[in-house]
Amino acid sequence: MQQPEFAEGDRIRLRKETEGGQVVYEGIVMPTTSRYIILKLDSGYNIGIRPDRVAIELIRRAGTPKAQGRGATGRVEAGEPGREQLPTIAILSTGGTIASRVDYRTGAVSPQFSTEDLLEAIPELGAIARIKGKVVYSILSENMRAEYWCKLAHEVYTEIKNGAAGIIVTHGTDTMGYTAAALAFMLRTPVPIVLVGSQRSSDRPSSDASMNAICAATVACSDIAEVVVVMHGSTSDDFCLIHRGTKVRKMHTSARDAFHSINDSPIGKLHYAASDVTNLKLEPLTSYARRGECDLELHGELEEKCALIKFYPGADPAILAYHVERGYRGIVLEGTGLGHVSAAWIPHVAETVKRGIPVVMTSQCLYGAICDRVYDTGRDLLQAGIIEGEDMLPETALVKLMWVLGQTRDMEQIRVLMRTNLAGEISGRRVP
Amino acid sequence: MQQPEFAEGDRIRLRKETEGGQVVYEGIVMPTTSRYIILKLDSGYNIGIRPDRVAIELIRRAGTPKAQGRGATGRVEAGEPGREQLPTIAILSTGGTIASRVDYRTGAVSPQFSTEDLLEAIPELGAIARIKGKVVYSILSENMRAEYWCKLAHEVYTEIKNGAAGIIVTHGTDTMGYTAAALAFMLRTPVPIVLVGSQRSSDRPSSDASMNAICAATVACSDIAEVVVVMHGSTSDDFCLIHRGTKVRKMHTSARDAFHSINDSPIGKLHYAASDVTNLKLEPLTSYARRGECDLELHGELEEKCALIKFYPGADPAILAYHVERGYRGIVLEGTGLGHVSAAWIPHVAETVKRGIPVVMTSQCLYGAICDRVYDTGRDLLQAGIIEGEDMLPETALVKLMWVLGQTRDMEQIRVLMRTNLAGEISGRRVP
Repeated sequence: MQQPEFAEGDRIRLRKETEGGQVVYEGIVMPTTSRYIILKLDSGYNIGIRPDRVAIELIRRAGTPKAQGRGATGRVEAGEPGREQLPTIAILSTGGTIASRVDYRTGAVSPQFSTEDLLEAIPELGAIARIKGKVVYSILSENMRAEYWCKLAHEVYTEIKNGAAGIIVTHGTDTMGYTAAALAFMLRTPVPIVLVGSQRSSDRPSSDASMNAICAATVACSDIAEVVVVMHGSTSDDFCLIHRGTKVRKMHTSARDAFHSINDSPIGKLHYAASDVTNLKLEPLTSYARRGECDLELHGELEEKCALIKFYPGADPAILAYHVERGYRGIVLEGTGLGHVSAAWIPHVAETVKRGIPVVMTSQCLYGAICDRVYDTGRDLLQAGIIEGEDMLPETALVKLMWVLGQTRDMEQIRVLMRTNLAGEISGRRVP
Repeated sequence: MQQPEFAEGDRIRLRKETEGGQVVYEGIVMPTTSRYIILKLDSGYNIGIRPDRVAIELIRRAGTPKAQGRGATGRVEAGEPGREQLPTIAILSTGGTIASRVDYRTGAVSPQFSTEDLLEAIPELGAIARIKGKVVYSILSENMRAEYWCKLAHEVYTEIKNGAAGIIVTHGTDTMGYTAAALAFMLRTPVPIVLVGSQRSSDRPSSDASMNAICAATVACSDIAEVVVVMHGSTSDDFCLIHRGTKVRKMHTSARDAFHSINDSPIGKLHYAASDVTNLKLEPLTSYARRGECDLELHGELEEKCALIKFYPGADPAILAYHVERGYRGIVLEGTGLGHVSAAWIPHVAETVKRGIPVVMTSQCLYGAICDRVYDTGRDLLQAGIIEGEDMLPETALVKLMWVLGQTRDMEQIRVLMRTNLAGEISGRRVP
């Protein structure tokens, strides 16, 4: 293909044929040492494109004044007529395997793959929606923390406020469930907010990155106005599951179908067909909040000083006082069975609660609900002031407690909020 | 039924008709305030029997000298010819729901049901084996701890040494997996050691106590010479699963089929038929150690000062120094994904290891294996001296570390032992 000469600072237009139609990118050529062309789009977002698969048109040399009235694309746009009617989706990248490359020198995977690279790698996305992207973080998800959730929630809020029809957050899978829960508590959303990641990096033939991203884009355009996680639902490439953000958990270190809804049905199933990615069938499995049902709201305050403590036989209850002394404001226990710790813990729980620190009980069983009314230990814990975590995941209960403490310091209100279903985190179906 | 008069100290014989044949108990009448007859058998074990369903024969008044040559039964024995050929099984009771009664005053469940009550409640056990029982503990299993495991292992050892063909340990379900793992590391056994419990107390129509106990007795007579957990395999009463003690986990707070083998197949399936409990079909699902393959050995030392610490986003690594200062000798981390904690933890892990405290990495995913060679964080953790916990459950890794530290303080030996499959705790099948 005959390509025009161009240099840093030039404005160019790239056309690319994809299965989903022609995709057009226009922007300013940025400096790079990679083999990709890096374009700064008019939106301020950068995009990286392989030069060997596109038709390049030189629009304007660096320093030439911009023609009046030229419509800034600002986004990736498909070239076919009617494409501009596609909904606009914002992809916010935080890092993780879906945004990682293998370092062939060390064999290790590190997060350095931008949203634009993702778009380049998965051109089908452009046939599903008008995509704009932004790198919010570039971290491995084990380094995620409450203050980053706050910023991320703010970015999501801004994109929705600015008209995005749906949000995709690319995220490392390790702590994706925690982040999904955090966004679910912080945001009331009229549009889908979809977290997606991959268990295998896109350099591997078994990578789930492409299918997960395509499914996530489809869900981001759907009428599911909740914070959800979209990931492989089986070890084959036949469907993704749409999990409620407060009910989802990574249940396998490496399998592609690692994510499961716990104590709840997934919201839906997205049947995948590589040959027709613009018409994937979404099969609802349970009820959900619909697009436009509520107004956008951000309640972005979190109390980061909350701890999750797992009980084990013989565990020393002095760990409670340790956390109190270090200024922790809330504690989630991961007890045994219906919600137990050893009898030695009970006075320590009572003391912690007396000092104004809420203590929430969850179960290391993960499945099933807390019920501290059955056994002596449980009744003693209730007496000591424990808050039953219902059928919440321990991880979700931790994030919820951070959020609740961000809203109120009134112990009675905390008790009520922790036991009230705010974002699908309590299924309400008590197990017999 | 005409019954003879008898009083405390009298020696009596009780005959009882069961589905499995006639069961005979003989012993000294003990004082009691219950409606049960409490007999001290010649073995020293006590048994409680409801007086309204048995034929009683007075053998000897209190104070009468014992006749020479009378065979002390010492155990429950079935009366049919050939019954004495049944294997002898020792039931060691530790408490828990299977040994609990509902307090009708408070509605709460507490452990006060002895092994003998269990035998009384489930007479079919007498048709499967000659049963002797002993109450080792009477506790709710959340109060179980390492020093109790040591005593329990010793009791199991003694029973096997004294000829028991199999052992049943009745146990609360909350920490049954931990205890099973502890026994698996402490004992090399030529006979089955079966832990069993129930999720619903025997007073409830949906109780699983009876079927679980009958299946446990069948497994205790089988050729599976491992420490196993036998519990309902479905929510129906159609089969129990036989789980390897180092691979089993309680995965539901209340369901009867709460126990699952993680990262391994169950050892087998026991098809249940209430009408023919002496001929239950045992379907092996994987290979296992067979009866008599090894000699009985007890390695009963445990280092109780080991901690299990669950990581969560933003978790403060100072928790490591806290444990070191409090004299902990080993730490198991429950990290994210393939075995990660945040970058902030890495120098603290290195410092802990430098001080001679082994730090073992496991995953809160539960399913799948640790692999710290893929991502930067993992490689940094390896550099810091972390020990990869392979595909061990976090709970099993904790118990194993206690046991390994009970055997050696040599860091290199600890590393090797923690990564060597000693009791089925490492499945060896690395997930891709």
